[in-house]
Amino acid sequence: TSGESTTDSSLPRVEWRMTTSWPKSLDTIFGGAATICDRVAAMTDGRFKITPYAAGEIAPGLKVFDTVQKGSVECGHTASYYYIGKNPAFAFGTSVPFGLTAQQQNAWLYQGGGLDMMRQIYGDFGIINFPAGNTGAQMGGWFKRQVNSVNDLKGLKMRIPGLGGKVMERLGVNVQGLPGGEIYLALDRGVIDAAEFVGPYDDEKLGLHKTAKYYYYPGWWEPGPTLDVQVNKTAWAKLPKEYQAVFETAAYESNLTMMARYDTLNQAALGRLVAGGTQLTAYSKEILAAAQKAAFEIYDEDASQNAGFKQVYEQWTDFRKRVYNWNRVNELSFTDFAIGKQPIEAAFP
Amino acid sequence: TSGESTTDSSLPRVEWRMTTSWPKSLDTIFGGAATICDRVAAMTDGRFKITPYAAGEIAPGLKVFDTVQKGSVECGHTASYYYIGKNPAFAFGTSVPFGLTAQQQNAWLYQGGGLDMMRQIYGDFGIINFPAGNTGAQMGGWFKRQVNSVNDLKGLKMRIPGLGGKVMERLGVNVQGLPGGEIYLALDRGVIDAAEFVGPYDDEKLGLHKTAKYYYYPGWWEPGPTLDVQVNKTAWAKLPKEYQAVFETAAYESNLTMMARYDTLNQAALGRLVAGGTQLTAYSKEILAAAQKAAFEIYDEDASQNAGFKQVYEQWTDFRKRVYNWNRVNELSFTDFAIGKQPIEAAFP
Repeated sequence: TSGESTTDSSLPRVEWRMTTSWPKSLDTIFGGAATICDRVAAMTDGRFKITPYAAGEIAPGLKVFDTVQKGSVECGHTASYYYIGKNPAFAFGTSVPFGLTAQQQNAWLYQGGGLDMMRQIYGDFGIINFPAGNTGAQMGGWFKRQVNSVNDLKGLKMRIPGLGGKVMERLGVNVQGLPGGEIYLALDRGVIDAAEFVGPYDDEKLGLHKTAKYYYYPGWWEPGPTLDVQVNKTAWAKLPKEYQAVFETAAYESNLTMMARYDTLNQAALGRLVAGGTQLTAYSKEILAAAQKAAFEIYDEDASQNAGFKQVYEQWTDFRKRVYNWNRVNELSFTDFAIGKQPIEAAFP
Repeated sequence: TSGESTTDSSLPRVEWRMTTSWPKSLDTIFGGAATICDRVAAMTDGRFKITPYAAGEIAPGLKVFDTVQKGSVECGHTASYYYIGKNPAFAFGTSVPFGLTAQQQNAWLYQGGGLDMMRQIYGDFGIINFPAGNTGAQMGGWFKRQVNSVNDLKGLKMRIPGLGGKVMERLGVNVQGLPGGEIYLALDRGVIDAAEFVGPYDDEKLGLHKTAKYYYYPGWWEPGPTLDVQVNKTAWAKLPKEYQAVFETAAYESNLTMMARYDTLNQAALGRLVAGGTQLTAYSKEILAAAQKAAFEIYDEDASQNAGFKQVYEQWTDFRKRVYNWNRVNELSFTDFAIGKQPIEAAFP
């Protein structure tokens, strides 16, 4: 039954800016920021207005954290692992090599204690964070020639940032740092032999398939990366509690719908790429096993040097083991039968 | 920058009731309903108040649809596949045997045209629906003795409702209908030989492990069932548009957090069950292949008899093929390596 009485809520008009790490051309990931802004406006009839900005409009893409910390913008959409220089445990808030899938990442964050731990670390910097998007398991990069063994990786020049790059370095790769916009030319001119970016839909926009034939999978360094919206705690504390709830719920929606968009757009883009001559190629078991071993050696070393990293790593490792066991029983046993029967080559006519 | 001016929103006080298909003891799935109510209240400072009711308090658990359609309650939390008698295509809104995982189901609904099609069907009954929860891939049921071949299924008395039951019937199973609360006694007294319910966390509450030793996987009939919140369209139209946006966004949150709860609680419950003597047992490839064949025969027959079913089935089949291809490349190739290496028996000490 609907009552007819009304109430003066007298909620303030609030205008915020949201700086992001993304160009607008990456409409999937920038769209995660836009979703929050759109939904907050819809839920408050425009009284709480947030405007999203592309990387570089207010602040550089990798300075979202600093800009939000200072309070020169109220919030930002980014990934916590860009800020491992401030605290190495921020890696777990996004994704680490041989870590959690998107669904497992959500279970860890929302129900497995992960978000509490990330919030404690962010809190040291005057920031509160909310998961706000996921790309799903990424691809393993574009290669100009095939790599079948660890030996094939020695001296290979590859653009791969973050922990994935650290692992590749241990396997003998000559790791190169390059912004997304410079990958195509570097590959095309032979400055690099290989490069990873995101997945089919985003990679297609960079044109990487025009200059490298072999598209490797899986992207073992990012099996389910979470994006974050970061909010300055002083700005957050000034919000009416209704606006806090509205913002938080919009972040949940963004987390869910970005994943749905990626799954839908990637499947179509991969079909186009394969039809155009891209050759899907699996990482060999040898490379995967060597990479997994190197990854956990790196985590163990980081844990021995940093107590904060160690605390998150140990809790995360235990959760990972348990959620892997559960996944193996329920979903993986199903997908192995229903999806994994045929060779991948047969899937794309 | 935050402005200081305020505004009279003069939003009405609205009180709704939400009937559900669940007992409160199933705190995971009933929790999906509670999440929507709690979050809507938080986002509106209690001005839009929705009270969730357990099955039987207002209406029987399988009469949510009818009660919402009549408008005697404004909304309800349930599963669309309970209502395949009204339109067989409602099966796809929840889950069908050998269908989509939770993540794929979200991609289909939100981005692949699925929700639009479901809304069109619901609209014929004066209802608008929102996805509002997912249990993830379920388990394959409790058996008093092992079943290795299709021949072992002949004459077996099993409690399994819905399309899963129809498939089992084709494989020779003597399918029994029983409410959840009666499963334990029927199994214990030998009235039935096997029964499926949900997954470890929910099944443990029924005590099924105390009377059947073999816990089968995967639950191929429900790889990623979506729960729905159904709203009477007349009640919906009376809501201020802010409240509509608040309600819809709360449903997204519920969809995401129910899945995270199930993944986290199921992993712990399965560990307890195995420690207590439950024997995890995989369905044989023979049974899985026969069940998949029977399932698609049933869908083909339904499509030949019902144009509405056919339309959804064909669109869904195309999406399923494409998202399966994508999953096989990105996530499955990762989980096969990272998770699927060891035998399941080794995972639970």
